[in-house]
Amino acid sequence: MTNNKVLAIVSGGLDSTTMLWKLQADGYEVMETISFNYGQRHTKELDGLEKILSAFEEQFGREIESKVVDIRVMRDLAEAGAVMGNEELPKQAYDAETQRVTIVPNRNAVFINLAAARAVAMEYRYVAYAAHSNDHSVYPDCRPEFVEAMDRALELANAWTPVNLMAPFVNSSKADIVRVGKELGVPFELTWSCYEGGDRPCLQCGTCIERTSSFVQAGTPDPLLTSKEWEEAKTYLPAPEQ
Amino acid sequence: MTNNKVLAIVSGGLDSTTMLWKLQADGYEVMETISFNYGQRHTKELDGLEKILSAFEEQFGREIESKVVDIRVMRDLAEAGAVMGNEELPKQAYDAETQRVTIVPNRNAVFINLAAARAVAMEYRYVAYAAHSNDHSVYPDCRPEFVEAMDRALELANAWTPVNLMAPFVNSSKADIVRVGKELGVPFELTWSCYEGGDRPCLQCGTCIERTSSFVQAGTPDPLLTSKEWEEAKTYLPAPEQ
Repeated sequence: MTNNKVLAIVSGGLDSTTMLWKLQADGYEVMETISFNYGQRHTKELDGLEKILSAFEEQFGREIESKVVDIRVMRDLAEAGAVMGNEELPKQAYDAETQRVTIVPNRNAVFINLAAARAVAMEYRYVAYAAHSNDHSVYPDCRPEFVEAMDRALELANAWTPVNLMAPFVNSSKADIVRVGKELGVPFELTWSCYEGGDRPCLQCGTCIERTSSFVQAGTPDPLLTSKEWEEAKTYLPAPEQ
Repeated sequence: MTNNKVLAIVSGGLDSTTMLWKLQADGYEVMETISFNYGQRHTKELDGLEKILSAFEEQFGREIESKVVDIRVMRDLAEAGAVMGNEELPKQAYDAETQRVTIVPNRNAVFINLAAARAVAMEYRYVAYAAHSNDHSVYPDCRPEFVEAMDRALELANAWTPVNLMAPFVNSSKADIVRVGKELGVPFELTWSCYEGGDRPCLQCGTCIERTSSFVQAGTPDPLLTSKEWEEAKTYLPAPEQ
């Protein structure tokens, strides 16, 4: 029997949530999700994950396990100075630190390799992550050539229990992801993208603008927006980068 | 000016210690070492690292920073069941768990990628680890083709701040490493290999046997052994696998 079991790297955001639905539609068995908590602001993303997995179970009758891995150690690695616990940092420095973490080097590669450790231990055949083409210009670890090289490295490192890397959206834009998600009935209202972590999307931060403009481009209203916000967004948001 | 700064993945054992001396001899600047504490038994290896770095400074007049990263989270990943803290495990289960960790999947790849995050943050040009040919048959992540693939993945993932992977002993046997170390004046007496973590090497475990037979093959007495132990070792130890 073919092993088509997948461990999916997810954040609770739009891209990785849609990836779960896409993998299911493509005939893969998503067995478990893995998420990384490295003290980022938008932990609200992770809070929503439970609801997303419940919605998945309701729609497809399949339960997906979830695992959150504490990877705050990456903050120490990105710091030039001595290792400090957060409790020693004043509020302002903490915020600065948290911001810097959003550009922690080699992040996706670390996540993928920790996920691969889990996948091999559980004999899942694939690790999947939601890299997409809007990120190609800024994040080299979202590009097809990186996916290919890391896939090869994973395969060679785990020769006894092969594991491969999947990135089903690597050649899709975020607007394409909205189109796919709409088609597959993804509960967009449960996904969260805003970096600010408020009760409602701020509609000002980079991720809010990228998300909203992707919905505009796909011609599908974002259910997180009021109809007034949506009408306004349609008139002034620029098209997203491809 | 060429950036020849290196972050070296070390354990305090024979191979990675000799690698520090080799990198220095080859004209690289080892700026910092990185070690991973994942609750393994032979933390004695790490205890010796400080002395090794002092000996290095005395011999070459260069100080090397050191960093130990807590990566016990890998235990949770290798476990099939629920996540548990060590304090909840009875002694026996803890030992069993610790043993299992010695075969935690994808370990070197995770270490290399965490090290790469650090290297990029500090603008070190290379990450080095001490893979050698005795391990090729058992550990696929010590083979030249893995080194090549992971090097490519690191380079692509960090396109803005290139980092490359070095494995200077990847085509050397452990006996070759002893020969190189002898030549370069490596303080073998400060290095530790035994898994048992006693005051003296047990001379029974796999790593003790591999170490001793490599010294025998290189024709150099291991300073950790008494002359009586050394004479005995010469008569009955099999040659190490190549």
